[in-house]
Amino acid sequence: MNLENYIASIENYPQEGITFRDISPLMADGNAYSYAIRDIVQYATNKQIDMIVGPEARGFIVGCPVAFELGIGFAPVRKPGKLPREVISADYEKEYGVDTLTMHADAIKPGQRVLIVDDLLATGGTVKATIEMIERLGGVVAGCAFLIELDGLGGRETVGDYDMKVLMNFPG
Amino acid sequence: MNLENYIASIENYPQEGITFRDISPLMADGNAYSYAIRDIVQYATNKQIDMIVGPEARGFIVGCPVAFELGIGFAPVRKPGKLPREVISADYEKEYGVDTLTMHADAIKPGQRVLIVDDLLATGGTVKATIEMIERLGGVVAGCAFLIELDGLGGRETVGDYDMKVLMNFPG
Repeated sequence: MNLENYIASIENYPQEGITFRDISPLMADGNAYSYAIRDIVQYATNKQIDMIVGPEARGFIVGCPVAFELGIGFAPVRKPGKLPREVISADYEKEYGVDTLTMHADAIKPGQRVLIVDDLLATGGTVKATIEMIERLGGVVAGCAFLIELDGLGGRETVGDYDMKVLMNFPG
Repeated sequence: MNLENYIASIENYPQEGITFRDISPLMADGNAYSYAIRDIVQYATNKQIDMIVGPEARGFIVGCPVAFELGIGFAPVRKPGKLPREVISADYEKEYGVDTLTMHADAIKPGQRVLIVDDLLATGGTVKATIEMIERLGGVVAGCAFLIELDGLGGRETVGDYDMKVLMNFPG
């Protein structure tokens, strides 16, 4: 199945010069959505994954069915103020300024093997902050899976030696 | 399985006098998460559902695995400014003021049968706005499923005659 056919490209969104890759047509199609999730599940098999971690909100759309199909738990990465119990946080650089992500302090138990799942890898700021939090909680990042990698924005270099799965590539 | 054991209750959050019901321990436990999702899938079976609709962000955590397991698509309900293509919107009343939700204008095709899935039913404002948008797009709301109903806040009355499934009840 050619998943690229299910990605809408919106020119000059959210700002001039940016082409936004919209996964909503893929999610809306039961066959394409199922195909994409199963591809990530296949990648996860034999990695002895204990937990899926996904950043809000599109990371939930991709990561939660993966967790369900593997029969394991899901831990969310959220913006500050969204998680009600004790959290840890990590900052990451955005084009203009710094942003912060949080996880519950008990989201990952020491030694748990974690797969990070998100819709999109661009500069890699989100995944870098997520890896940092998982490792501070004693987890092992066994891999990262993305529906889409935007080429040339440095995301792959940021992920570095961590194992990575990408379903589609688009120009960055 | 007693799912209530996997809900954390946080007193006086997000404000004094409110007890917040936190689903993150349920999501973190593969068995409990799977059990809850399968219960909603069971409810959906024989309703000829074409699409799952879920409000951001916890509606994604519950609704996306349901869509995956049924082999159908998922359409997100989001805050304004989050969806990149043409949207429709609906307002709903909150305790202080009015909030707005949006869906892509092509999210639901006329005649499609839709199951709305969210983590929590409180006053019912979110589900009411979601029902309104689905029906304006020509969809048929075949049911609503919630992990948790907070009793006595009017949510059940707001849902009214629409079919409804609730996995857990807590005092509102």
